[in-house]
Amino acid sequence: MTRQLDFFADELKRLGDRRRSFLEIDRRAGQFPSATSRRGAGDADHEISVWCSNDYLGMGQHPVVLEAVKTAVDAVGAGSGGSRNIGGTSQFHVLLEQELAALHRKEAALLFVSGYAANDGALTVLTGRMPGTLVFSDELNHASIIDGLRHGGAEKRIFRHNDTGHLAELLAAAHPDRPKLIVLESVYSMSGDVAPLAEVSELAARYRAVTFLDEVHAVGLYGPEGAGIAAREGLAEDFTIVMGTLGKGFGTAGGYIAGPAVLVEAVRAFSRPFIFTTSMPPATAAGALAAVRHLRSSEYERTRLRENTQLLHRLLTERGIPFLSARSHIVSVPVGDDLLCRRASALLLQGHGIYVQAINLPSVRPGDELLRVAPSATHTTHDVRTFAEALDDVWTELGIPRSGSSATTARAEDGPTGGATRSGYGTPLPLNAHAGG
Amino acid sequence: MTRQLDFFADELKRLGDRRRSFLEIDRRAGQFPSATSRRGAGDADHEISVWCSNDYLGMGQHPVVLEAVKTAVDAVGAGSGGSRNIGGTSQFHVLLEQELAALHRKEAALLFVSGYAANDGALTVLTGRMPGTLVFSDELNHASIIDGLRHGGAEKRIFRHNDTGHLAELLAAAHPDRPKLIVLESVYSMSGDVAPLAEVSELAARYRAVTFLDEVHAVGLYGPEGAGIAAREGLAEDFTIVMGTLGKGFGTAGGYIAGPAVLVEAVRAFSRPFIFTTSMPPATAAGALAAVRHLRSSEYERTRLRENTQLLHRLLTERGIPFLSARSHIVSVPVGDDLLCRRASALLLQGHGIYVQAINLPSVRPGDELLRVAPSATHTTHDVRTFAEALDDVWTELGIPRSGSSATTARAEDGPTGGATRSGYGTPLPLNAHAGG
Ligand SMILES: Cc1ncc(COP(=O)(O)O)c(C=O)c1O
Ligand SMILES: Cc1ncc(COP(=O)(O)O)c(C=O)c1O
Repeated sequence: MTRQLDFFADELKRLGDRRRSFLEIDRRAGQFPSATSRRGAGDADHEISVWCSNDYLGMGQHPVVLEAVKTAVDAVGAGSGGSRNIGGTSQFHVLLEQELAALHRKEAALLFVSGYAANDGALTVLTGRMPGTLVFSDELNHASIIDGLRHGGAEKRIFRHNDTGHLAELLAAAHPDRPKLIVLESVYSMSGDVAPLAEVSELAARYRAVTFLDEVHAVGLYGPEGAGIAAREGLAEDFTIVMGTLGKGFGTAGGYIAGPAVLVEAVRAFSRPFIFTTSMPPATAAGALAAVRHLRSSEYERTRLRENTQLLHRLLTERGIPFLSARSHIVSVPVGDDLLCRRASALLLQGHGIYVQAINLPSVRPGDELLRVAPSATHTTHDVRTFAEALDDVWTELGIPRSGSSATTARAEDGPTGGATRSGYGTPLPLNAHAGG
Repeated sequence: MTRQLDFFADELKRLGDRRRSFLEIDRRAGQFPSATSRRGAGDADHEISVWCSNDYLGMGQHPVVLEAVKTAVDAVGAGSGGSRNIGGTSQFHVLLEQELAALHRKEAALLFVSGYAANDGALTVLTGRMPGTLVFSDELNHASIIDGLRHGGAEKRIFRHNDTGHLAELLAAAHPDRPKLIVLESVYSMSGDVAPLAEVSELAARYRAVTFLDEVHAVGLYGPEGAGIAAREGLAEDFTIVMGTLGKGFGTAGGYIAGPAVLVEAVRAFSRPFIFTTSMPPATAAGALAAVRHLRSSEYERTRLRENTQLLHRLLTERGIPFLSARSHIVSVPVGDDLLCRRASALLLQGHGIYVQAINLPSVRPGDELLRVAPSATHTTHDVRTFAEALDDVWTELGIPRSGSSATTARAEDGPTGGATRSGYGTPLPLNAHAGG
């Protein structure tokens, strides 16, 4: 036994200062993005402003959501008490699945305890059961997608990030009779860039591939009723399965897929992480249901987020602080060096009361370290200005290089219709070219 | 694409009448085990009594839990808004991990979004990283354990259920220098029998194996402060890692491991289902914290559950209705035929307003179909008597064989100290010998 303890102690030692300690933060409902933070036991409370939350629209504090959760707790209690098949299916689970299917205009939807479990569980079934299935996966797909594909065990081809030319090549090279599945994200979680959905859907049609689209960072945020990027582009029907989370734009927790009844039903019947676990608390489902319904009819939160994002893009561009993409609300500022990135994060927190977590391995590759800045609908215009000033100060204090010309970085004008997506992300070169370290 | 739809349609067709439709039930907080049920849209509400919930102690409706959830929702909102490393660590996560470590008298504990994720995530790391690791796993271990071991990829030896003789043989045959890990459950989820922990811990010591003990169906329910079966037997220290859920005895949702700091820290650093997901809602953690604290000081719920279980054991024994084990609160009544089992479940529901889900593939092997009866602390003595009468009626109506002599079934006297655990479970023979079909 001591052998194992020694082995893992060594592994941790090798992590060195990449060993993480989590910042303890308590967001304050009704006052997002404000929170109190503590670093370790005994530390005093600090008032901070959160700039890296995935609760992009502030639904985690919306009165309709909080009321829905509390009302459900009073009515049906805390946990579900069982798996979906054994007593763990409440009206809230059923209604939420119906609502999500309606949101995405698909025949059916299925809930999981998390987006991770949804990707893992669904992809294992959808790629693993049918013999000969060949998977085409974007190189920057999320860990949960990668794990689902691994667990399915199907053969796969990795295409370069957002590179439809490469995808087309790989599809053309595959035997026409093999069942094919293309898996990608709409908004990439770490770079914030957006997939060329129209081109992907054309390729999928040409090669008769099933498409699985992770809209985790888009649902609630983009498109009509918050249905996501594919819906915004009028392409929702072209993507066979849409996958989303309830833990980001919808402010609660849980994950889901929506798609043709037969595929959803197959996942329901065969997915082990779906079957062999306690279902999400009914009250969490009730809160998520309230959030989805609210965002189907309200544009206010999406508008506020878009305004804040555009302002931030402009302020950073003016200051020569680069960011990876202007195509979404995820404003990832490359630093490219682990230590420097963590120092920037620490300075923001200590000097300015602003919390932006430094992103490093395993979330990005070494050399791609970044500050993943997430404006939210709950930030005020004043907050955005204050943030840009603070980042500017930190860049100066640490001497982090700025972009010399605006041509070398994403520009605010690179909106959904114009400009090229930076496709260099994920290859060390362009990032390192812009960042210190 | 149609190829895939056709393929999965075929797969579903092959499931035939094993295709599941979930009973929609809304438990009524404050009135457990009472619930209202609906089968499909348009069906009217029925008043039912739930006899298959894993919320064994009724903590899912306990006022301290519900108040804790609601207070936390008011204070910090609905979702966490991030992964544990990126803004998703609240005071409730931290306090709950401390409380769980204290409960199990371990150095550290780590939360996951579910018990499934805890087994999957922890076992992948603990068995998959150290070269040469050899795993010894009980043949009836839960799907989440099996998946964690698969994903870790270590070589494994399966020992016959609860058969320490077989385990000893396998350990003796393994190279003494290989790092070893033994993984088992304390209370088995489907059979309700209990592992011979003292013997396992002796073997582990002799062969210097790390032990990983799933106490999912025991935490909150057994032992001092609800610390589980190992604690009850005075063996808590002998098990390296204890794994548990917050979704059963603790009435909420989530999973955890507790153990030596270095192993817990390694899982925290390397487990992908831990890292790459939104953390559990702070309010769920707050509810779980209240449940754990309550059950550390209150014996009332454990006493009520034990009384109900003993009464049920006695009533079923008197009626010649067999059950697999009298060692725990899980009173699994073997039926051994899928259709018959589902008919028994349907009759209980329709004729008696009692809900016991029929358990079939993939939860048990074909031929092992059973009614997994779970008395709870919230059933009254009268409820228990009513239930036994109802089961008796159904047994008569369907002509399901009874046990001729009490020797062929587990007996109520087979308490924790006396009697043999039925080790036949998992091999078709003994079950089929007792059950119709
Ligand atoms: C692209 C992507 N997919 C899936 C997930 C998993 O979703 P969840 O946090 O609900 O588990 C995440 C983030 O966690 C993500 O960024
Ligand atoms: C033995 C065992 N381990 C683990 C789990 C998973 O726990 P959870 O329901 O919290 O995912 C279960 C049941 O679901 C179980 O029965």
